Amino acid sequence: MATELEAQGADVKGGNTSVEFDEVNMARSGDGQRFDVVVVGAGLSGLAAAGRLVERRAATVVLEARERVGGRTLTKDIAGHAVDLGGQFLGPGQDRVRDLARELGVPTARVHCTGRKVLWLGGRRSEYCGRTPKVGLLALLELAWTIRRFDRLAALVPTDRPWDAPNAAEWDGVSLERWLDKQLWTRRAKAVFQIAAQAMYAAEARELSFLYFLFSLRAGAGFERNAGIEGGAQQEFLVGGAQQLSVGLARRLPGVVRLGEPVEAIEQTEDEVVVHSHAHTYRAGRAIIGLAPGLCERIRFTPELTPARRQLQRRMFTGSVVKCIVAYKTPFWRDDGYSGEAVADDGLVRIVFDDCTGDGDKAALLAFIPGDAARKASCLTPEARRQAIIDDLVRLFGERAARPSDYVEYDWIRDPWSVGCYVGLHPPGVLSTVGTALRAPCGRVHFAGSETATRWPGFMDGALESGERAAAEVLEAMRS
Amino acid sequence: MATELEAQGADVKGGNTSVEFDEVNMARSGDGQRFDVVVVGAGLSGLAAAGRLVERRAATVVLEARERVGGRTLTKDIAGHAVDLGGQFLGPGQDRVRDLARELGVPTARVHCTGRKVLWLGGRRSEYCGRTPKVGLLALLELAWTIRRFDRLAALVPTDRPWDAPNAAEWDGVSLERWLDKQLWTRRAKAVFQIAAQAMYAAEARELSFLYFLFSLRAGAGFERNAGIEGGAQQEFLVGGAQQLSVGLARRLPGVVRLGEPVEAIEQTEDEVVVHSHAHTYRAGRAIIGLAPGLCERIRFTPELTPARRQLQRRMFTGSVVKCIVAYKTPFWRDDGYSGEAVADDGLVRIVFDDCTGDGDKAALLAFIPGDAARKASCLTPEARRQAIIDDLVRLFGERAARPSDYVEYDWIRDPWSVGCYVGLHPPGVLSTVGTALRAPCGRVHFAGSETATRWPGFMDGALESGERAAAEVLEAMRS
Repeated sequence: MATELEAQGADVKGGNTSVEFDEVNMARSGDGQRFDVVVVGAGLSGLAAAGRLVERRAATVVLEARERVGGRTLTKDIAGHAVDLGGQFLGPGQDRVRDLARELGVPTARVHCTGRKVLWLGGRRSEYCGRTPKVGLLALLELAWTIRRFDRLAALVPTDRPWDAPNAAEWDGVSLERWLDKQLWTRRAKAVFQIAAQAMYAAEARELSFLYFLFSLRAGAGFERNAGIEGGAQQEFLVGGAQQLSVGLARRLPGVVRLGEPVEAIEQTEDEVVVHSHAHTYRAGRAIIGLAPGLCERIRFTPELTPARRQLQRRMFTGSVVKCIVAYKTPFWRDDGYSGEAVADDGLVRIVFDDCTGDGDKAALLAFIPGDAARKASCLTPEARRQAIIDDLVRLFGERAARPSDYVEYDWIRDPWSVGCYVGLHPPGVLSTVGTALRAPCGRVHFAGSETATRWPGFMDGALESGERAAAEVLEAMRS
Repeated sequence: MATELEAQGADVKGGNTSVEFDEVNMARSGDGQRFDVVVVGAGLSGLAAAGRLVERRAATVVLEARERVGGRTLTKDIAGHAVDLGGQFLGPGQDRVRDLARELGVPTARVHCTGRKVLWLGGRRSEYCGRTPKVGLLALLELAWTIRRFDRLAALVPTDRPWDAPNAAEWDGVSLERWLDKQLWTRRAKAVFQIAAQAMYAAEARELSFLYFLFSLRAGAGFERNAGIEGGAQQEFLVGGAQQLSVGLARRLPGVVRLGEPVEAIEQTEDEVVVHSHAHTYRAGRAIIGLAPGLCERIRFTPELTPARRQLQRRMFTGSVVKCIVAYKTPFWRDDGYSGEAVADDGLVRIVFDDCTGDGDKAALLAFIPGDAARKASCLTPEARRQAIIDDLVRLFGERAARPSDYVEYDWIRDPWSVGCYVGLHPPGVLSTVGTALRAPCGRVHFAGSETATRWPGFMDGALESGERAAAEVLEAMRS
């Protein structure tokens, strides 16, 4: 009991936020003032929406619960090395996030992925080069065949209305794991896809609707590119940290973003919305909610949102992840011929990436603890968790992993404002039942958030798309 | 938009609550006073827990958000006829609820079920006698065979830990609908089970985990008795209304139950819990939460509940139901040789029961609008909804159903404190992932609620069991 409570009290450790946005002109004169639009949430989707609205001269205010912008992106300083404890990667086809980085002068760099990779499967360690893990010929054939099959099925899912896919009811009636159980012959191919689900969604394959899985592949770039580094969605990172994007967007909006203002209630009438934060009241023509659907449940709406929307909010769930950056004096794994990539089917650490700075000056490994492992890790004491994570790295990369020079972790399960990461996910039976409520406005309330994107949902790119789309909806409504 | 907002503003219509509990000795002296136990929620589970605690001389307070006791039981008066807008029925094997009714002097009566029954399937109306609907020989054989198979599989599910069933992962990876799709040959047998799921859970078969479905059969009395009237869980009702049970329990606890006190936050330390309602603070040794798991998400816990518990709360969902009582001058259907029972696979009204008083003096039909139909009905204007429901009754029972003498409905989807009915349900992938958190105390916080019962979960009987079990846990902890 004592240990559990102590563990629960554990919080993020490590350096300070390395990129900051300070409010300017924050007269907090909200009460009484009337806006065109109130945006809830200063993550990428809310800030992208606000940017579009302000460009079109709409009087806009962004209310953010946290004392920082960036939502599920969070950059910290660890001994002069900016590391991302939240969203981090981008890849080919993600033009929105790439364009924004270019505009803001944030350089990108390639994730290091040359060298041997480590696979821990069924209690045995092996190494491999290229894309194909050492799982035996049958499993390899099955992996290749299944990946082609995923992409062929995903091609049938319309990205703007996955519930209209030809087999939507069938695919939404089964979890990804159950589908794998029925379709796959080899234990090892199944294990690889289960780790892939953990890496891609921070959830177990048994938690995910197969229809949602196909939708996310279709709305991204297919299985291999969604899951991969080289040529895939994890190909690059933002030098200096992904939170810079939100900070850059917010700096373009002087006086617009108000931090430390969690929205508690939204009333709407025929003519306006009235948004109540802890301390202030904001009146506006429309509202845009830039939150994961599940988080909208915290806001008291009057009149209530539609039953379908409420149920969507209550049934989507957010992934579970603890993200750790373990710094070393040198990138010893590179010296040993490893890329720094590893996957494991047991222990806490399931996925490892190289997380050195672009020039390799600062050395670190990035360890993901997803799904069941995250729920378990979250209940350990900070000391026990750290030790278990470092032990896992040792079994993957050898004894030199035992002596990190620094360690920083973030438990997104316990983050009070995200309550999970990476994104809101669909269990079976939700997308085909109340999925139509995902993007549908409820009166004067519009919905952004990466979960609502039709291209790269669940990625930073999707967050930007969703904000732009919500802003366009509102601008269109204001015209009519 | 205007119509939608008006519809959203719709509220319960009909008479006043016919059974009432008034607070006595409500000095509201909570601040500072220390209790042994704070119970959250004055539904059957919370009141049953409080009853046990007070018997054992534990200083107990029950905090209830509503201005009434009874939770998901709600009895209203419609022209001198007490009708249940919430939980209503009991049957053989439900000894706890039967004993309580006897103790409180609340008589039970049989639900009328003699006469022809009406089936609306695939756009065609038919009538049948006995238990077997007219669905053709093949479908009948398949119905009988599948019911036996359900019960055989359910027998493998341990009621206190369904996640340990031999095929738990497989069964939890698939929805009930998907299982039916794969296993059944006849369209009509499948349709019958889909209506059964709507009737039994107020949800669609595609929303439910097959493992949860089997668990609920096992923890009840098997498919036919869980779903049935005669010999089943809908065999009897409480004359004068089910809310009388809660009112009776509350009257035994003078000064203990405090209405209009929604609990907003619970802090716990090594030594105590501090429970904050809107206006007051209560200190106690332990807390018992007598709410559906999903509703616990509204309470801010410090330190937070375990990750598994949080995720369970966020992923279980509550059924969707609008319950209507349509009163007539005479029970015309009985005169026409009908029992009053009907099932339909389209329209709003999916299940109809006779709802006359025991002596047939007051005549009424009870219409359930579950699942998708409830979500649809909830968005109609009150006038349009009433008309659609009466039209459905006309197509089932003829023109005489067109002229009710009274009409009362309750939309549980929009109930602010239950946000759905009958109970919290499991989508695929939850019970096998975080199910162990269902009943596990988090420090000094214990969980009651019908969802946590091992016998008759989802029924009033299960609510009583859960309250008694939680009280026993707390009494045991207080001793040690």
